[in-house]
Amino acid sequence: MTEFFNVLPPDDARQLLFEHLTWRTSSQILASEDAQDRVTFEDVRAPEALPTFRRSTMDGYAVRAADTFGAGESLPAMLSVVGEVNMGQAADITLAPYQAAVVHTGGMIPDTADAVVQIEHTQSVTGDEHMAPRGEIEVMKAVAVGQNVLQIGEDVTYGDQVLPSGHLIRPQDIGGLLALGIVNVLVAQSPRVAILGTGDEVIPPQSNPAPGEIRDINSYTIAGQTRRGGGIPQLLGIIPDDQGALQAAAQRALDDNDMVVFSAGSSVSSRDMTATIIDALGDPGVLLHGVATRPGKPTILGVVNGKPILGLPGNPVSAMVQYAMFGIPALHRLQGLQSAPRRGIVWAKLSTNISSETGREDYVPSRLQDSPEGLIASPVFGKSNLIYTLVNADGLLKVPLNKGGLTAGEWVEVQLF
Amino acid sequence: MTEFFNVLPPDDARQLLFEHLTWRTSSQILASEDAQDRVTFEDVRAPEALPTFRRSTMDGYAVRAADTFGAGESLPAMLSVVGEVNMGQAADITLAPYQAAVVHTGGMIPDTADAVVQIEHTQSVTGDEHMAPRGEIEVMKAVAVGQNVLQIGEDVTYGDQVLPSGHLIRPQDIGGLLALGIVNVLVAQSPRVAILGTGDEVIPPQSNPAPGEIRDINSYTIAGQTRRGGGIPQLLGIIPDDQGALQAAAQRALDDNDMVVFSAGSSVSSRDMTATIIDALGDPGVLLHGVATRPGKPTILGVVNGKPILGLPGNPVSAMVQYAMFGIPALHRLQGLQSAPRRGIVWAKLSTNISSETGREDYVPSRLQDSPEGLIASPVFGKSNLIYTLVNADGLLKVPLNKGGLTAGEWVEVQLF
Repeated sequence: MTEFFNVLPPDDARQLLFEHLTWRTSSQILASEDAQDRVTFEDVRAPEALPTFRRSTMDGYAVRAADTFGAGESLPAMLSVVGEVNMGQAADITLAPYQAAVVHTGGMIPDTADAVVQIEHTQSVTGDEHMAPRGEIEVMKAVAVGQNVLQIGEDVTYGDQVLPSGHLIRPQDIGGLLALGIVNVLVAQSPRVAILGTGDEVIPPQSNPAPGEIRDINSYTIAGQTRRGGGIPQLLGIIPDDQGALQAAAQRALDDNDMVVFSAGSSVSSRDMTATIIDALGDPGVLLHGVATRPGKPTILGVVNGKPILGLPGNPVSAMVQYAMFGIPALHRLQGLQSAPRRGIVWAKLSTNISSETGREDYVPSRLQDSPEGLIASPVFGKSNLIYTLVNADGLLKVPLNKGGLTAGEWVEVQLF
Repeated sequence: MTEFFNVLPPDDARQLLFEHLTWRTSSQILASEDAQDRVTFEDVRAPEALPTFRRSTMDGYAVRAADTFGAGESLPAMLSVVGEVNMGQAADITLAPYQAAVVHTGGMIPDTADAVVQIEHTQSVTGDEHMAPRGEIEVMKAVAVGQNVLQIGEDVTYGDQVLPSGHLIRPQDIGGLLALGIVNVLVAQSPRVAILGTGDEVIPPQSNPAPGEIRDINSYTIAGQTRRGGGIPQLLGIIPDDQGALQAAAQRALDDNDMVVFSAGSSVSSRDMTATIIDALGDPGVLLHGVATRPGKPTILGVVNGKPILGLPGNPVSAMVQYAMFGIPALHRLQGLQSAPRRGIVWAKLSTNISSETGREDYVPSRLQDSPEGLIASPVFGKSNLIYTLVNADGLLKVPLNKGGLTAGEWVEVQLF
């Protein structure tokens, strides 16, 4: 049964969509080094400790801390240097009392040592070269037990959850996995997003439009946004405005993909046909036909078989804004992402007054410029039919739902593209 | 001749690097739809106007505006509907005075019309169905010349520069190009970045470390950052700490790539060898050995044949911070990018005091949390040897050069990963 509402605020609309969106993509195993920007499918736990041996954080001498107690500039501790721990090798030196071993940053500490004196706090009394593995040294500063030493498990202990399920993998996460020898990771498959163009006036961008025709651009902007959101766009071309052909194409798109997006023509009849087709695909069908935003009010949100189906407005600016508002969060959901990535929101000072209406969220394409008082946002005014208002903008300035407008000098939220 | 300075603040260090970095990648032609996240190599100009015909922004009737002057609720204008402009077709209807034609949103306007009356401001007097292409209508509201009409060239006029050279291509830019029929675009080739691992203690992450050994992670975190910056990482493996082998590998890396990064071992001797090798590659060689930051002071910046060469610290946190500070801006330069993308900087309220030193820029891994007062940044304290301080963080909190510390409640800049 179709739940049909008139117009909802964006947050409520997204909530309604999410309540019905139960589909998730399957998992796949990837080499950790190839898993950037993918989402973990399960919790990842540490199979060992990190580090696995005690390491020096300084160039200097591994010592028994007790041998340096009370040492100072006026009364240095005298130690005998009995060897060197080479980088990448086990520290197989046994320190007797008042003995020391040369260690390098990152090198292993002998079992019998419990601290490192940094080279700057020592001097040779037997005239040896810098950090020579022999001779007598004076230690001018006492060290505490554990000083300048990374302990076993100080970074991660065995069994720790190192990444939760639903985590977007970043470069440092790849590093964290590899440090523990986790060379493969289970991630969510990238959602396949079918993009269906409609509208009798729309032709492929490679063609020369006759009078009355325009090139399809929405399929491509939505494809670009889909890639940024971790999805794989499937451009199914422009389907003729014929109910039967469109219904068949929509059914195949739904069967073969994780999400379906109709990039509708701009006419009301084209949008109406989209709604009819979504309803005929299955339950619940169309959830909502209209969102309280500008641009983009005539957006259609639907779900069939737990998969999201979006009918976007034909205006290019509206289509991109609405897809950012509903399509990208849906893509994240499909991958099990727990929270949206924070990249891409800045605060800036508004350069001029903007009018709006309470009860509607406005998104105004805006340019950003640095200034001594911080970032300045200047609206790029233009009809939402004009793609170049977005090309000439750095982001979308948000006028909140409960505001009748904004005044010059206010700090405003700008969502970067 | 080598210019050798001791330690410079990060902005001065970057400036010094940029003064010597003269190398740029070549150009290549790409399909516009595949050019996302690439950088334009030349200015792009409009080969035609956009739109190319006058379009309606409403569902309604194309009219001669003069025929509606003075019309209102009490005294409507009477017009005869003589036809319909179908979507995607030329508007080959000639309007005589007091005639109108049905038009749809996005449809073409007849030559003889100069405005559109939206359907809501009309009613049929002959009892015809909604938007029927015949009968008599009453217009209850006058329209001005041009009202509800997109004019030819309103988005872009012929010859306009639509994208400048050195512009990072976003989804809407692809839309803007395709709208004008620009299906191919000249972009900078993606820079190839050679990553050379060094350090006797470092082994491939697929291996099991013996005591004293650690797995290479820096090569992989830097590779991940490189991809985010638009580069193509070339992992050349871990080169033995042998001067001859390393010099030969470095020379090949420089010849075959646009940038070379040494992911050094953590010991001082490993870093010293890196500096020696960079100097032996050619002029000017090492520009700087040390940046006034924490973490990451012992960074080496060099240039040979106009190409950037970086020697990164061995600590994983330091390596990532320094690569973000110098490697990514260098990658942008190599592609001719005019300004860094703004994605990824947020402001947040600091949760606790942080100490620092004036004359040094600190970057503190921090977690971000939403709160009613805005975003809260909480430092993840930990030694810069610990990769998991980055895994557990959302971004790097910046303590500016001229600050001796920050106090709880201050608004701080956080660079997201």
